[in-house]
Amino acid sequence: MRKLAMLGGGFIGRFYTDSIQGYRNKDKVVSIYARREETATQFAKDYNVKHWTTDMEEAIAHPEVEVVCVALPNNLHEQAVLLCCKHKKAVICTKPLARNAAEAKRMLEAVEKAGIFAGYLEDLVYTPKHIKAHESVMNGALGRILWAKSRETHPGPHSNWFWDMEQAGGGCMLDLGCHCVEIARSYIGKDIRPVEVMCWADTQVKPIDAEDHGIALVKYENGAIGQFEVSWTFRGGMDLRDEVMGTEGTIWINSFLRTGFEMFTTGKGADYVAEKAESNTGWLFPVGDEMNELGYNHMFMDMFDAIEEGREAKETFYDGYVVNCILDACYKSAKTKQWEPVQL
Amino acid sequence: MRKLAMLGGGFIGRFYTDSIQGYRNKDKVVSIYARREETATQFAKDYNVKHWTTDMEEAIAHPEVEVVCVALPNNLHEQAVLLCCKHKKAVICTKPLARNAAEAKRMLEAVEKAGIFAGYLEDLVYTPKHIKAHESVMNGALGRILWAKSRETHPGPHSNWFWDMEQAGGGCMLDLGCHCVEIARSYIGKDIRPVEVMCWADTQVKPIDAEDHGIALVKYENGAIGQFEVSWTFRGGMDLRDEVMGTEGTIWINSFLRTGFEMFTTGKGADYVAEKAESNTGWLFPVGDEMNELGYNHMFMDMFDAIEEGREAKETFYDGYVVNCILDACYKSAKTKQWEPVQL
Amino acid sequence: MRKLAMLGGGFIGRFYTDSIQGYRNKDKVVSIYARREETATQFAKDYNVKHWTTDMEEAIAHPEVEVVCVALPNNLHEQAVLLCCKHKKAVICTKPLARNAAEAKRMLEAVEKAGIFAGYLEDLVYTPKHIKAHESVMNGALGRILWAKSRETHPGPHSNWFWDMEQAGGGCMLDLGCHCVEIARSYIGKDIRPVEVMCWADTQVKPIDAEDHGIALVKYENGAIGQFEVSWTFRGGMDLRDEVMGTEGTIWINSFLRTGFEMFTTGKGADYVAEKAESNTGWLFPVGDEMNELGYNHMFMDMFDAIEEGREAKETFYDGYVVNCILDACYKSAKTKQWEPVQL
Amino acid sequence: MRKLAMLGGGFIGRFYTDSIQGYRNKDKVVSIYARREETATQFAKDYNVKHWTTDMEEAIAHPEVEVVCVALPNNLHEQAVLLCCKHKKAVICTKPLARNAAEAKRMLEAVEKAGIFAGYLEDLVYTPKHIKAHESVMNGALGRILWAKSRETHPGPHSNWFWDMEQAGGGCMLDLGCHCVEIARSYIGKDIRPVEVMCWADTQVKPIDAEDHGIALVKYENGAIGQFEVSWTFRGGMDLRDEVMGTEGTIWINSFLRTGFEMFTTGKGADYVAEKAESNTGWLFPVGDEMNELGYNHMFMDMFDAIEEGREAKETFYDGYVVNCILDACYKSAKTKQWEPVQL
Ligand SMILES: NC(=O)c1ccc[n+]([C@@H]2O[C@H](COP(=O)([O-])OP(=O)(O)OC[C@H]3O[C@@H](n4cnc5c(N)ncnc54)[C@H](O)[C@@H]3O)[C@@H](O)[C@H]2O)c1
Ligand SMILES: NC(=O)c1ccc[n+]([C@@H]2O[C@H](COP(=O)([O-])OP(=O)(O)OC[C@H]3O[C@@H](n4cnc5c(N)ncnc54)[C@H](O)[C@@H]3O)[C@@H](O)[C@H]2O)c1
Ligand SMILES: NC(=O)c1ccc[n+]([C@@H]2O[C@H](COP(=O)([O-])OP(=O)(O)OC[C@H]3O[C@@H](n4cnc5c(N)ncnc54)[C@H](O)[C@@H]3O)[C@@H](O)[C@H]2O)c1
Ligand SMILES: NC(=O)c1ccc[n+]([C@@H]2O[C@H](COP(=O)([O-])OP(=O)(O)OC[C@H]3O[C@@H](n4cnc5c(N)ncnc54)[C@H](O)[C@@H]3O)[C@@H](O)[C@H]2O)c1
Repeated sequence: MRKLAMLGGGFIGRFYTDSIQGYRNKDKVVSIYARREETATQFAKDYNVKHWTTDMEEAIAHPEVEVVCVALPNNLHEQAVLLCCKHKKAVICTKPLARNAAEAKRMLEAVEKAGIFAGYLEDLVYTPKHIKAHESVMNGALGRILWAKSRETHPGPHSNWFWDMEQAGGGCMLDLGCHCVEIARSYIGKDIRPVEVMCWADTQVKPIDAEDHGIALVKYENGAIGQFEVSWTFRGGMDLRDEVMGTEGTIWINSFLRTGFEMFTTGKGADYVAEKAESNTGWLFPVGDEMNELGYNHMFMDMFDAIEEGREAKETFYDGYVVNCILDACYKSAKTKQWEPVQL
Repeated sequence: MRKLAMLGGGFIGRFYTDSIQGYRNKDKVVSIYARREETATQFAKDYNVKHWTTDMEEAIAHPEVEVVCVALPNNLHEQAVLLCCKHKKAVICTKPLARNAAEAKRMLEAVEKAGIFAGYLEDLVYTPKHIKAHESVMNGALGRILWAKSRETHPGPHSNWFWDMEQAGGGCMLDLGCHCVEIARSYIGKDIRPVEVMCWADTQVKPIDAEDHGIALVKYENGAIGQFEVSWTFRGGMDLRDEVMGTEGTIWINSFLRTGFEMFTTGKGADYVAEKAESNTGWLFPVGDEMNELGYNHMFMDMFDAIEEGREAKETFYDGYVVNCILDACYKSAKTKQWEPVQL
Repeated sequence: MRKLAMLGGGFIGRFYTDSIQGYRNKDKVVSIYARREETATQFAKDYNVKHWTTDMEEAIAHPEVEVVCVALPNNLHEQAVLLCCKHKKAVICTKPLARNAAEAKRMLEAVEKAGIFAGYLEDLVYTPKHIKAHESVMNGALGRILWAKSRETHPGPHSNWFWDMEQAGGGCMLDLGCHCVEIARSYIGKDIRPVEVMCWADTQVKPIDAEDHGIALVKYENGAIGQFEVSWTFRGGMDLRDEVMGTEGTIWINSFLRTGFEMFTTGKGADYVAEKAESNTGWLFPVGDEMNELGYNHMFMDMFDAIEEGREAKETFYDGYVVNCILDACYKSAKTKQWEPVQL
Repeated sequence: MRKLAMLGGGFIGRFYTDSIQGYRNKDKVVSIYARREETATQFAKDYNVKHWTTDMEEAIAHPEVEVVCVALPNNLHEQAVLLCCKHKKAVICTKPLARNAAEAKRMLEAVEKAGIFAGYLEDLVYTPKHIKAHESVMNGALGRILWAKSRETHPGPHSNWFWDMEQAGGGCMLDLGCHCVEIARSYIGKDIRPVEVMCWADTQVKPIDAEDHGIALVKYENGAIGQFEVSWTFRGGMDLRDEVMGTEGTIWINSFLRTGFEMFTTGKGADYVAEKAESNTGWLFPVGDEMNELGYNHMFMDMFDAIEEGREAKETFYDGYVVNCILDACYKSAKTKQWEPVQL
């Protein structure tokens, strides 16, 4: 049984806790940190958490806490991780690892120096579909991988801090592209070096500084191409699709909008449908079990198993760092309008 | 933590154990009974089970065992359940509960008399999609339910005993129809009485006595209609679909063949795809996480939670009995060619 | 070039004319009959028809008219056909051929006696998908056909006469079931005799005498089963699906709601989407080219080619008569609650 | 009635003729030119063509011929068009219009100078789905268009000349990208200027000089982005999909592999399934009516109507020229690795 501190009582902090404490698991959040007292106390009540605090270090240092889960806005990930290093607590950090590669690198070096377990919570390579598809790819069912595309688009984020470049570090490319980059990389092979990227990004709709739409190609050393398409301006829900092309086969995955569950309703009685659904009448496409479909369950299973078995998780801070390096190159390319090298 | 005896080391015994012991759960199979020693020992080895036996009662009576899971051919369910009554062990029994309503009734009365927990392992009302769809229906998103159809067809069972009327008690209607009947009933309302049935059944292809194809309508007291279509002669994999019509809406669920996961392969490297898949080249439709998609995880969660909370499971022996009653009427109707009353 | 009289200027009269005069074809409506003058003149104007009348016989007798297309309410089909016999004009008649088998038989005998061409406008066995699927079935791609199901459900008809038993002759079973019966029959084989039927029908929702929901099984002499599911109470648009099971294969056809065309709109600017669509915002599923997808183009091509080649059409009055016989048996079975023989 | 010369008796020449002479249309191929006598005579026999020749000019000059349809390898389009100018015959030319913009410009100027009708046979903006989707976009159902993607990939072409740069002028980008460029352009608006492109292209699999995989972004003056993904190395059939994002909505079109027609067969009796299908057993996805689904029927209707009405076709040589300009920029960008301006 793992005992956790949850840092952040927002959208993902609650989602994570549902997954961690769900499924009769042995694991338990024992301390919750949030900036505002009412968020912390509400969370503590909802999830039956013994200890709450508005002081981040207190949560981390709490003697019962073995593992710290970072579910804070992007600009606070580094600070949280450094405190875990100081207190020698295992840390698992939400995506993106950092706002940029330099920050990610400092975090990576810190956890290595501190010798603590450091897992990167990239849930979308833990979805049941991804796990099985990845297995097929590894078994050679698709032959040599030529191209892997991941697309994540929705109508826009739910919290204001996403729009503030200082806190968020970027727009939809950082927010959603980090998922896509790692998905493509996992199909192409995590041992294959990403070499250079070409990226377009624009602010087409939203009244913000950051990009609300971005597309990039990531070239790997073996000639394979990773592609992402991300946007905060998509209409119709959350579009989450992957495609892989190999010399011997093809994989198409739809993780959210077309999963074999279709509902029409004139509108009576239908409440929450799914993350980012835009309406609650007409044809709707709910997801059976979001936590499982989105990979949270298998992700935490791997994290806690890894801690107990003394091994690395499938997704580590190094992976998060590589993702940040690729995204940095994308941001640069979007400006220089040229292919930009990935600097690892 | 629940400690189980697993009775039966075949297809479903292994599937169940994967689910029970997976997900870092607290539950553990501590005794395995199989008819043949090599099945029992292999199982014990594969799943790290301390105690194995070829004597059913020994497994049930084993002092560590708290819960007995019946995963035996249909003709052995009653015997196993009666032994659980004798030893006052909680029992959870696979589908169909019994070969017919009379047998089911004896089992139901025995567990009630013994005062033991008795759960019915109807996994398909525990799938994530079913749970969410059911919730929407209960919330009124579909208005008044008029019709609920469930279809389960595949190319035929894997073990010989299914073909033996004495052991199996029936053909595809008992084997697959039991799922469909309960699915439709759950949408229409488990408090609404099934009144009469009309059924067609035939042995169209297989060299067996039992029916390999059957279709029935089940009329409920409020005028709603449950429908099932089951077959052991379907080509193309396992077709598992539900449809619900209400005055205000519609639900369509595809649980197996079209779930947003599509793969084409020329055939190199593709091994096991999914239960009942017929080929391993060309276009294939794997399921991300069969145990979860088929409801096993949520089913066992409910069973063990119910035991710990001292409440009934969502699916009880009474439900299994109702299903047997409906199916008995179907078999009768297929012979008399008339609507036959459901005798509860 | 064929010159037609169109009898009936309503929904299907217009649809037919769009198809007949579309595609640069050689064929032309030269006379329009409607009951009300304003319908006739509006039609004449919209479709550039030279002659209009509110006298049915006048349209049929018009010297330029070679072919008469009956697009009138069901109770007027016989009268129209008898007038065609009198004037020795080729006739093509919409579905259902008649309100019942007796009426259909009289019409069949009349056209045979008059020696005129008589085509039955069952468009749904002329859809491009059906034509190709049927070809595959005939080539043996599915082996021996075991079961063929056709489903047509929508939220209810657009004209009042459908609700009047005298004019309509029945409810959704006659209106929609006639399509389904012929679709299933075409897969099973038009030379295989339908033997008996079992049917459930009910008025679940609408304030009408006729049934608004019906399901039937049609047993053929070779043991194959045709099935239909029809309703005027479905929510979500027009559901038009066929499924065929054979010993060697399976066919699934979706003709309307899921055809590879998906649109989400917040609602600005979206007008007509498709026949029976229930909303014009949210996720919508338009059909590319309804006339072609629904078989009208290929149907009229066959009719006119047949006339010119002096052969029978693929669908004749005899087919329409068989359909009426099967439906008569269904209505009877719904009442007697027994399998009823099909009397041809 | 239009009388045509068909230049080229290969794959597309036959497909075109099926469409032109199908549907009881008034139009007829009266002369066939092919390089080899046996191709010409076979074609003449199959399609009942009165005149055949192996001399291109003879076919064009034939007194009965009113319209010339160019269905030759890419390097022969210019020569054919110039001969049409000389003989003042209306010309309709298959895609791509030319091997590059310079060639296209010469052709465009020649037809303008000769004052002949010149239609560009870009069938994929004439598919029923495209026509209806385009209409919705024009009506504002999607708001302002932000991004339009078209994808065409298949396992590779059927004729050797495609692999010869001299004859083909390029690889899959020219062959398939020309479709995609025009599809995206039609959604974004044909009056909006394409400004610059960024493109990646590679020869990942095939033993050829030309690219077998290419991806590009086309930026329009209003900030909208057109995207194409094309390949000759895709496994699984012919993937033909479009996606459009607007501020108020989304469109997803699948034109070939998922159109509501699904078939499983163990392999007996299934012959030709669809263009580029890779197998004839297992799960197959036929298209109901390829000629209609791929737009040929509506395209020729527009061409012949335009000729008769003395107006331009929806797709003109100017459109073909714009497509060639965009593709030239793509080829350049793939080499310079920079955004390259589109030079019109
Ligand atoms: N894995 C995923 O799929 C996924 C999904 C959503 C968010 N995330 C990530 O989770 C993190 C949090 O996002 P969210 O959606 O939960 O945001 P949120 O706004 O819903 O919640 C953030 C929480 O952080 C705390 N917080 C906010 N600002 C703070 C500050 N200045 N100082 C201290 N605490 C503060 C508050 O408790 C707040 O509730 C981000 O890094 C985001 O990228 C990941
Ligand atoms: N819930 C589901 O979806 C599902 C799926 C498959 C099977 N089942 C049910 O599970 C039960 C077992 O089916 P299965 O598919 O595992 O069958 P199986 O043949 O694969 O395994 C049955 C096991 O029972 C034991 N056994 C067999 N015959 C025996 C005998 N005469 N005496 C004692 N033990 C014997 C053996 O250990 C054997 O391995 C059946 O009731 C079946 O209906 C349920
Ligand atoms: N093939 C198909 O898919 C299809 C679809 C719809 C209707 N239909 C059939 O077409 C026929 C007409 O249906 P509809 O949907 O066009 O109906 P409708 O009500 O839209 O039109 C019927 C037309 O018939 C005429 N009419 C009505 N009542 C009349 C009367 N008492 N005397 C003389 N003329 C009268 C009027 O011109 C009217 O416009 C029916 O038999 C129906 O089953 C076929
Ligand atoms: N619109 C579409 O979707 C589509 C599809 C396929 C091809 N095309 C286009 O059609 C054209 C022909 O392609 P295809 O697939 O029919 O090719 P093909 O090889 O099947 O046929 C080409 C025909 O051109 C003639 N030909 C070939 N080489 C010749 C030469 N050197 N001199 C004179 N005649 C010669 C022959 O009759 C041959 O049959 C190309 O421009 C191609 O891009 C368009």
